[in-house]
Amino acid sequence: MSETLLSSRNLAFELYEVLDAEALTQRERFAEHNRETFDAALGTARGIAEELFAPHNRKNDENEPQYVDGGAVLIPEVKPAVDAFNEAGFQNASRSFEQGGMQLPHLLARACFAHFQSANIATSSYPMLSMGSSHLIETFGSEEQKRLFLQPMIEGRWFGTMALTEPHAGSSLADIRTRAEPAADGSYRIKGNKIFISGGDHPLSDNIVHMVLAKLPDAPPGVKGISLFIVPKFLVNEDGSLGARNDVTLAGLFHKMGWRGTTSTALNFGDKGECVGYLVGKPHHGLAYMFQMMNEARIGVGMGAIMLGYAGYLYSLEYARERPQGRPVDAKDPTSAPVSIIEHTDVRRMLLTQKAYVEGAFDLGLYAARLVDDCETLATEEERKQAHELLDLLTPIVKSWPSEFCLKANELAIQILGGHGYTREYPVEQYYRDNRLNPIHEGTHGIQSLDLLGRKLAQNNGAGLKQLTRLISQCCERASAYQSLDKLREPLEQLMARLSATTLSLLGDLMQGRVAQGLANSALYLKVFGHAVIGWRWLEQAIRAEEGLARGDASDTDFYRGKLQAARYFLTWEVPSCHHDLALLEGGDDTCSTMQDAWF
Amino acid sequence: MSETLLSSRNLAFELYEVLDAEALTQRERFAEHNRETFDAALGTARGIAEELFAPHNRKNDENEPQYVDGGAVLIPEVKPAVDAFNEAGFQNASRSFEQGGMQLPHLLARACFAHFQSANIATSSYPMLSMGSSHLIETFGSEEQKRLFLQPMIEGRWFGTMALTEPHAGSSLADIRTRAEPAADGSYRIKGNKIFISGGDHPLSDNIVHMVLAKLPDAPPGVKGISLFIVPKFLVNEDGSLGARNDVTLAGLFHKMGWRGTTSTALNFGDKGECVGYLVGKPHHGLAYMFQMMNEARIGVGMGAIMLGYAGYLYSLEYARERPQGRPVDAKDPTSAPVSIIEHTDVRRMLLTQKAYVEGAFDLGLYAARLVDDCETLATEEERKQAHELLDLLTPIVKSWPSEFCLKANELAIQILGGHGYTREYPVEQYYRDNRLNPIHEGTHGIQSLDLLGRKLAQNNGAGLKQLTRLISQCCERASAYQSLDKLREPLEQLMARLSATTLSLLGDLMQGRVAQGLANSALYLKVFGHAVIGWRWLEQAIRAEEGLARGDASDTDFYRGKLQAARYFLTWEVPSCHHDLALLEGGDDTCSTMQDAWF
Repeated sequence: MSETLLSSRNLAFELYEVLDAEALTQRERFAEHNRETFDAALGTARGIAEELFAPHNRKNDENEPQYVDGGAVLIPEVKPAVDAFNEAGFQNASRSFEQGGMQLPHLLARACFAHFQSANIATSSYPMLSMGSSHLIETFGSEEQKRLFLQPMIEGRWFGTMALTEPHAGSSLADIRTRAEPAADGSYRIKGNKIFISGGDHPLSDNIVHMVLAKLPDAPPGVKGISLFIVPKFLVNEDGSLGARNDVTLAGLFHKMGWRGTTSTALNFGDKGECVGYLVGKPHHGLAYMFQMMNEARIGVGMGAIMLGYAGYLYSLEYARERPQGRPVDAKDPTSAPVSIIEHTDVRRMLLTQKAYVEGAFDLGLYAARLVDDCETLATEEERKQAHELLDLLTPIVKSWPSEFCLKANELAIQILGGHGYTREYPVEQYYRDNRLNPIHEGTHGIQSLDLLGRKLAQNNGAGLKQLTRLISQCCERASAYQSLDKLREPLEQLMARLSATTLSLLGDLMQGRVAQGLANSALYLKVFGHAVIGWRWLEQAIRAEEGLARGDASDTDFYRGKLQAARYFLTWEVPSCHHDLALLEGGDDTCSTMQDAWF
Repeated sequence: MSETLLSSRNLAFELYEVLDAEALTQRERFAEHNRETFDAALGTARGIAEELFAPHNRKNDENEPQYVDGGAVLIPEVKPAVDAFNEAGFQNASRSFEQGGMQLPHLLARACFAHFQSANIATSSYPMLSMGSSHLIETFGSEEQKRLFLQPMIEGRWFGTMALTEPHAGSSLADIRTRAEPAADGSYRIKGNKIFISGGDHPLSDNIVHMVLAKLPDAPPGVKGISLFIVPKFLVNEDGSLGARNDVTLAGLFHKMGWRGTTSTALNFGDKGECVGYLVGKPHHGLAYMFQMMNEARIGVGMGAIMLGYAGYLYSLEYARERPQGRPVDAKDPTSAPVSIIEHTDVRRMLLTQKAYVEGAFDLGLYAARLVDDCETLATEEERKQAHELLDLLTPIVKSWPSEFCLKANELAIQILGGHGYTREYPVEQYYRDNRLNPIHEGTHGIQSLDLLGRKLAQNNGAGLKQLTRLISQCCERASAYQSLDKLREPLEQLMARLSATTLSLLGDLMQGRVAQGLANSALYLKVFGHAVIGWRWLEQAIRAEEGLARGDASDTDFYRGKLQAARYFLTWEVPSCHHDLALLEGGDDTCSTMQDAWF
């Protein structure tokens, strides 16, 4: 049977040839694991994804959640799917054995979860949101909060959400208006309205734990006055049993272009003035706490974008192999049999572009997941700190690059299917609609560009940037051992040399207070930086492919040749296109910043 | 009231400052017209579009046509809209007074129709298809066919379709299998299956006239064996009254991602062996005839893509002006009031990009419409021939460039609206879904690139290309009178110099039989050629803006400044990006053509 979720061969290449997942088993935390246990977990994920997630992906889309009697009703296929997910342990894939988890490296947990995202992005969102919010309580909650709220989430009985956005404040969280008043019993009374809360209501779990951002009465203005609260849908008794319904109301559902199977809700907190919430951690530290979740979510969003791209790529590849149409451009005989459309160079271009985007981004997403492991399990504090710095720097790329380019991949998948691709009888149009959300949620593309250029680059005195530059330079050095890779390596070296100079110049603007000028073309910077990172990951894959070819296993030759060709595509077609963007950045181009409202 | 369909000021700029529509009234055919009659027609179009087309655009999308008792049922709002369209004369806007038309220039007819496309692309498709098919009968049909079929179409009582695609043959029409057997009475019996036939059934007219491609028994193989037939839904008696139902069956409806209000049908011809068709023109000349309609349709598709882009641009512009969110990047005080998002440079970038794409393409679309007038009404045959050559060359650009870049504009419109843009509560996501069809139908992007590079460039010994090169060069020369335009003109000159050399080299490949090599990167060529053409149109607009500023009407200053800034954006941000594409073309890059099926 052909693979529809992701290529097992490519996954094995990433895990065992590029990212050396087996080396992780040398670390104490993963000592009980080995390649067999990894592969067993991956096989289980693939099986559940294929059998319980993929089959209702279209049905999810065609039957979006309905608002009935104050609650959201889903199609019946969703619950058995997430139940199987939880029962198989994927809710706690990276949690410790003592907590009842699989104690897998994050790298493997991400790879497992990728199957669910590819099979059904909407259904996989419910457990994903739950993993993020439970991790928040685990890290910042009190022992009592862990006992009452975390434990049922770990057991998969309760689910969680993150409730940030309000009708007037999405990107600008400083302006949220939801209030939290202290009550006599040490809890708080929450009052406010939230929108776009994914999974804000559903019948999948006994309770829903909302992680809500709100302001205390004495909050300082701006982002430094935001606090984090646990607000359960049902109140919880001392013994953990469910109490009365909390004063949280489902005000309505949003109807989206795609990603329709996931409820997107408007929630009212405290319509009756009785909404009970519990402060997590210290007052006014909520945004910092939430950023832990958001950073996880950003990697999750990036992986989601990648897997939608991946699913579309595999589908259009199979279609191109099977669909006869037309003849080669230099064919003379109109009575000759039509060829499969994969024989047309322009179709191959669209497939190769998809492969380069999707597999390049997939490598980066898993690389980031391995960094999460490094943050937690490298031997020394210094090493762990370094991993953190690099991960922080890469997070806006992991989130934004796939959101843009794997969406582009989906656009190409539709194009390959032609008129059929535009119909809902084929899956690729849904991938495209689903994927269009990714440049928006968890921080828009614009926000990511400001985060990268305005915050991350200079953080810790540029420590993350220095690491990345060194890693890319080392990769180029290793590549130089292969003459066959010269034409792939050189464009990356040229880009990096110029990018480094531009970066210094822009950081100079920012440090000298020319903030608006320095950030004016942050979108261009984000693109170039992202292309440099993906170019690096492709050069790394190309080195591994050369190593694989040198081992000489004939059955793998085609696979490695494909890797080299995709690397060649990315490094010679895509990477050099950034020089024009750099020229605009270098010149401090002010075309956009000097455009006036009245001129439109 | 704000303008939602297109900007009247920009339309007047195009018609009266750039394309000199008033000069057309010097020609005999348009002697009865003047600016007042033009504006009256435009005003009527705008009124009907706003009152009868726009209001059901979303309802069309949410209630796609249903298959009921062998026919397609539409929402009730569609018929009054197309009836009003016909009653106001827009079905025959460019037809002669004697035919009952308005005898407007095509330029004006296109500009009128643009309002309907912007307001409701799906509903406007029905009359558009009818205009194309009736024009086909008008040009190639017999007098009897004109009397029986054309006249009711002119009167708006009957509608038409074009029936080309079959389940196994879309891009490759050489492979169609629909057959036409001569019958004793001089008519033919048609047998075959067609798919993706837009407007193939609906309750909007008393009859539907299908223009069907089929093969006669003695047809030579390939595209030279295709003939064109009139196949009415209802047979027609000698006196023009309707007879029995013809043997044409609605086999089913396709369910599309967007453009949902237009029925996309599967039609079976001759299930009972009784499907009557009438040969149009000579046997085996069908494809050449159909190309007249397809070329019109390609300009229509391009205009549709532009108007969807335009509608999204105007909506996101108004949203950006009204939506408060966040503060300038260099703001220090978190308690300061939020600003409208148009104040953020990255939002201005997204608006300016949309403006550059949409208004650049709009200019080109109207320029092409004016060329249609030149083809018909220039004084000498030589002049008319030249206009034809230029129009032929530009047609693949008019069709493909907006399909790609005005879709990109819609993507940006969604991004500006953020989470709201992703919901069906706002119109921009529908524009995006609707627009995704345009790179597919009426010849895919790939087909357009082969048409441009493989056919149009060398046609008539390169006469069209020579004209275009001369026009661009003359435009640059006129621009050189304005020092302020130096930085806009130079990138275009640099691109054209390099593009001309590349073109010669590629044509050399083709003429010397290296066809596969010459066409390998036709997609890159299409992009560069398109950018050169749009760059030229922007430089032309910039010259007109400078002229306008020199006239010194203060109320227009902002408008012209906006034009200059959008021209600057396109010529300095977009045009130079093509040098990388040209480098790949120049080097005869074979990355895509050497990729092997087995390597994917």
